[in-house]
Amino acid sequence: MQIGVDLGGTNIAVGLVNDEGELISSLSRPTLPKRGWRSIIDEIISLIDTVLEAMPLEDNLKAIGVGIPGVADPTTGNVLVCVNLNWRDVPLGKILRDTFQVPVSIDNDATVAAAAEFKVALKSKYKNAIMLTLGTGVGGGIMLQGKMYSGHHGIASEIGHMFISNNFYDCNCGRNGCLETFASSTALIKYVNHQAKLHASSELARNVEAGVDVNGKMIFEAAKAGDVLATEAVDRLVYYLARGMMNLVAVLDPEMIVIGGGLADAGDFLLERIKREFYTLKYYPSLPIAMVTLASLKNDAGIIGAAMNAEQYS
Amino acid sequence: MQIGVDLGGTNIAVGLVNDEGELISSLSRPTLPKRGWRSIIDEIISLIDTVLEAMPLEDNLKAIGVGIPGVADPTTGNVLVCVNLNWRDVPLGKILRDTFQVPVSIDNDATVAAAAEFKVALKSKYKNAIMLTLGTGVGGGIMLQGKMYSGHHGIASEIGHMFISNNFYDCNCGRNGCLETFASSTALIKYVNHQAKLHASSELARNVEAGVDVNGKMIFEAAKAGDVLATEAVDRLVYYLARGMMNLVAVLDPEMIVIGGGLADAGDFLLERIKREFYTLKYYPSLPIAMVTLASLKNDAGIIGAAMNAEQYS
Repeated sequence: MQIGVDLGGTNIAVGLVNDEGELISSLSRPTLPKRGWRSIIDEIISLIDTVLEAMPLEDNLKAIGVGIPGVADPTTGNVLVCVNLNWRDVPLGKILRDTFQVPVSIDNDATVAAAAEFKVALKSKYKNAIMLTLGTGVGGGIMLQGKMYSGHHGIASEIGHMFISNNFYDCNCGRNGCLETFASSTALIKYVNHQAKLHASSELARNVEAGVDVNGKMIFEAAKAGDVLATEAVDRLVYYLARGMMNLVAVLDPEMIVIGGGLADAGDFLLERIKREFYTLKYYPSLPIAMVTLASLKNDAGIIGAAMNAEQYS
Repeated sequence: MQIGVDLGGTNIAVGLVNDEGELISSLSRPTLPKRGWRSIIDEIISLIDTVLEAMPLEDNLKAIGVGIPGVADPTTGNVLVCVNLNWRDVPLGKILRDTFQVPVSIDNDATVAAAAEFKVALKSKYKNAIMLTLGTGVGGGIMLQGKMYSGHHGIASEIGHMFISNNFYDCNCGRNGCLETFASSTALIKYVNHQAKLHASSELARNVEAGVDVNGKMIFEAAKAGDVLATEAVDRLVYYLARGMMNLVAVLDPEMIVIGGGLADAGDFLLERIKREFYTLKYYPSLPIAMVTLASLKNDAGIIGAAMNAEQYS
């Protein structure tokens, strides 16, 4: 049995997960970031203690995994940076290890969500796989030789911050040209707002011009209905996303690429467009290349992924 | 002791290499690609037999490594594609294994050259390192956890074929926007030819307009002398190369990035410009990030690298 902890800016969710990746028991409480890291860690410990009461007597706790919205040191388990929680150099790994006397893994929440997808949804069938999470931003998780990969300083798999071309607006990270400024819901919304006045025939454009707040889902619905501006926005997303995916192939040549996050709710409409563009970009036309699929886990992926990510250290 | 084989389009070079990466003995003969793969493999076997005569009696052969200008299947050692030699699905790994009864590793020549740099020049000090080779094209070699990485289908570390922005000319691979169309000697030459007529004050531009065939070295010399077109060409190379390097950080977060190939002969003039641009692109300003250095091996890197790459399989 492993414990998975999903530490978010809003809630802390803790669950007990068995070796098959099934959630046995879980609990959640508000994070309340302002109370500071020591109090939040005490809350995590108390949640773990409570959840462990559901563990059968014949079982034992093998490891604890935590997903954080930031960067951890892969060696020490220190949380190096966590912007939403305002954490810097917090010894979360050490405190949990000292308290529970089991191996503790701390990793980025996108990495942990990818671990859930690879190990539970895809049943560990692929040893080299990459997941892209298309939401407000673009997150990533990389598995190599069956292990989640965080890099030498813990800052790997920041796939959304690959430079892919200069863009008309800057990324939140302060730079220009990041993939997430082309391939996120934010990117879609910025683009239709930026282009609306050029598309008098688009209903979506008229809504934008009338001051309606559009979101990623509305843009995909409009594209499915054939709206010209929405189609242009989705085509642009697909153009750059496929190139970003082919960059991952050029560097890492994975066996499987999984597309998740809120935008993946657009389903086959999005997947078919991505595949068509991606496979036109093969650089060795005669050789096999990564498959592409949609993520399938929804609920509790953060807890389950943290637990499954911890399993490899136990 | 290991055998390293550097199989090129022009020459086959074979060497006996000790565990410290020192070349004990070597031989080279013309490849003569037109004679076909079976005859070329017989030539390789004959060269290995001759070179092995230099092995001290108390030593034994542990492994054979081969660097090829193409793609090999990481599992079988089959050469899948080798454009210059016109090879498709050649069982090079099996034939060498059957003949010499030792493990055989077949890998891309850029990967193998990187192995030499990481394991011999840098004395295996870094476990996660990436080398970029800036020559006629841009090649790459990736080491993760101390092992050279070739990907699931053997097509990883094609760093020169990352999409980095649309460009005014297409890549040899048939696509548009590859890093090597921005960061190779070919890229520099194409750019100065393309821009020459706009730079009446540039001596380099006047030479180009007069029909002089310029090369990468001449462009760097002109940039060092302050020529405006050459400076613009080098600045453009550095701009995109630094972004390509930061993409490698965003995906893999290595400890060390090594810059090699013919353009690296420009030395500190190039290295300082690359570092300045690269470090302005950090996405976590407070966290450590990859170091950058120039490659130092020149002669026999292909043989030594193939041998050192083989060592990990022995």
